[in-house]
Amino acid sequence: MAVGNSPFPVMPPLAGVRLGSAMAGIKKPGRRDMVVIALPESATVAGVFTQNAFCAAPVAVAKAHIERCREVHSAPRYWLINTGNANAGTGKRGLDDAYASCKALAEEAGVEEHQVLPFSTGVIGEPLPMERLLAGLAPACKTLSDESQAWQYAGEGILTTDTRAKGATVSVALSGGTVTINGITKGSGMIKPNMATMLGFVVTDATVEQALLDRLLRETVDASFNCITVDSDTSTNDACMLAATGVGAVVESDADIATFREALQQVMTALAQAIIRDGEGATKFVTLQVDGAQSRQEALDVAFTVAHSPLVKTALYASDANWGRILAAVGRAPVENFDVNRVVIDLGDVRLVEDGGRASGYTEAAGSAVMAQEEITVRIDLGRGEHSATVWTSDLSHDYVTINADYRS
Amino acid sequence: MAVGNSPFPVMPPLAGVRLGSAMAGIKKPGRRDMVVIALPESATVAGVFTQNAFCAAPVAVAKAHIERCREVHSAPRYWLINTGNANAGTGKRGLDDAYASCKALAEEAGVEEHQVLPFSTGVIGEPLPMERLLAGLAPACKTLSDESQAWQYAGEGILTTDTRAKGATVSVALSGGTVTINGITKGSGMIKPNMATMLGFVVTDATVEQALLDRLLRETVDASFNCITVDSDTSTNDACMLAATGVGAVVESDADIATFREALQQVMTALAQAIIRDGEGATKFVTLQVDGAQSRQEALDVAFTVAHSPLVKTALYASDANWGRILAAVGRAPVENFDVNRVVIDLGDVRLVEDGGRASGYTEAAGSAVMAQEEITVRIDLGRGEHSATVWTSDLSHDYVTINADYRS
Repeated sequence: MAVGNSPFPVMPPLAGVRLGSAMAGIKKPGRRDMVVIALPESATVAGVFTQNAFCAAPVAVAKAHIERCREVHSAPRYWLINTGNANAGTGKRGLDDAYASCKALAEEAGVEEHQVLPFSTGVIGEPLPMERLLAGLAPACKTLSDESQAWQYAGEGILTTDTRAKGATVSVALSGGTVTINGITKGSGMIKPNMATMLGFVVTDATVEQALLDRLLRETVDASFNCITVDSDTSTNDACMLAATGVGAVVESDADIATFREALQQVMTALAQAIIRDGEGATKFVTLQVDGAQSRQEALDVAFTVAHSPLVKTALYASDANWGRILAAVGRAPVENFDVNRVVIDLGDVRLVEDGGRASGYTEAAGSAVMAQEEITVRIDLGRGEHSATVWTSDLSHDYVTINADYRS
Repeated sequence: MAVGNSPFPVMPPLAGVRLGSAMAGIKKPGRRDMVVIALPESATVAGVFTQNAFCAAPVAVAKAHIERCREVHSAPRYWLINTGNANAGTGKRGLDDAYASCKALAEEAGVEEHQVLPFSTGVIGEPLPMERLLAGLAPACKTLSDESQAWQYAGEGILTTDTRAKGATVSVALSGGTVTINGITKGSGMIKPNMATMLGFVVTDATVEQALLDRLLRETVDASFNCITVDSDTSTNDACMLAATGVGAVVESDADIATFREALQQVMTALAQAIIRDGEGATKFVTLQVDGAQSRQEALDVAFTVAHSPLVKTALYASDANWGRILAAVGRAPVENFDVNRVVIDLGDVRLVEDGGRASGYTEAAGSAVMAQEEITVRIDLGRGEHSATVWTSDLSHDYVTINADYRS
């Protein structure tokens, strides 16, 4: 199940960026499950990773390799991604396998081992099937191509329980010329990213120096991937990568940075929202907008408390305007000295709550009409400050239980 | 659905404690939905209540009436409980209705209005059906009785989505004679009590002075009702009441306090666990024991993070030994400077995790054998301190979604 119709976009080719994929039999036979993304030597690369203490072996290795590249002033040249196995909770053997994968691809591609960054997603706790993975490298490299179709194959090759490939592309005019940002992402369950997403790979042909690229990635992820939740579970393997090939226009002036930042935010938000629309078992796409908070963190706390409430999520699934569950969730959010008489809650354009109880003009018919929609906005004004936050989530359906009771993820 | 077979116990009568019930048509016709519990004039009474900022009108009124009783040195004499309507999110009208209910029962029973404490549970946000509620008071009072059967009717009369009445009784010998503690409770969903439970009513024939009673209630609730979760949602109406009739032996010496406390803890824990066994859609009863933490709060944080993980809960439902999900949940718990290499996780008597990954001796067959059981213990040793906590939870099943997508609670 998934909310709405979201065809994979046609991605413009980016000079020097090539994508390859293979059916290595890691996930299951006949399924694209390995992706290689090649970047030009001129690229700058930034990454953000999961804060889960049990972070996966590839996350540890990707971080170490990025650091090594920065020390020796070389660029990460290859991103190696497999689905079907997360290589997480695998101890020392997992680290050895991640390093060995990078070494094998580096030899195949003629670069240094630390210029390869590994990413894995899938079942936690099983050893990587190294024989199949290593055997898939040559076929994947043979298909390396900068054509649009290669982006779509890459989008498909990183999926787990996702029902569809997710991509976004934006082109924007800077002073030095037009640049393009292409991104793909995957994720459907175990989605409550913390400083990162499940897996996101974004590449632009702009020229962006390292410190600026790092900052732009952090800022745009904070307002996109860090504002979504399917089920409150932060994965061991979350990573979001951003590369600027350094081939096209330079992002340097304040005006260009602002323009580029906005375009990048568009791509990041579109990708993050695509994860929610394809959330496990999702039948609703829900926007939780919290205003009037004393801090952004307070607004986020309230939004996530509502977004994680199983009772709110099952009511959304049932299209039941059970606003009492939203009120109860807001009331248990970690807010100090919380005066609920100042809280206003709107469901779409229908006022639900004011003066500590049901709004006087509220009718069940009006509430039900909004709840019947596939895309729903809940706006909560705390009436105690100037800060806001927006969080996106899905509902809790029978299919969520079926998927997670059946799938060993 | 519910875990195991838990018949309602035969409650010994407590002198001066009478229970009445009625079918007032608040929940649905032909269903016991109103309960009156009468206490003797010699009783001391303690209560703990929900921390939800949107606390229900009856919670506010019960607190105010307890305070008033203490000011004028009189005892709360009646607990008035209805199911079918929570009288929460009902603003000023809800408060008026709660006060009016107390006043009507006080007149019926010949006590002061502030000697009646009101409790409501059921749908949030609908006004109390006052006509039916008031009409039920006389019939309920007519059935007041101190017999065992009256305890069972009371247990039935407070249920919402619960599938069965829940009671516990313990008798214990003190220096001044044997005393008995009887308790009933309700709760099945919206269960993550915070300093209180859904609704719990516990009465002893012991004599316990007010300050001691308050302390004993707080301490035993902290280790029972505050350690359970079905779905992480804290209700607007949680309350746990403890009354000591003052008829029987005095609890005063250190030895008697210790003996009485232990008996009270037994009752509280049995009631709290009964809620989990009857959790909405529950097919498993799960004990999460966290050891080796730097503080009790840290242990609780880890236990609740695992207990709230939808992925852990669906794996439990599926009897799938998907220990990677437990590991991922532990890893995202809010623990500072968390060295996962020191974490040991056991599923029953099977070691799952050590040295940052799967335990060397682990086999899928051994893990699956434990997961197939109806009652499961997960023990997590953080290896960084001396503090522990135990939390009880249920699984996340199709029936949970069905119950909450269908029921307007």
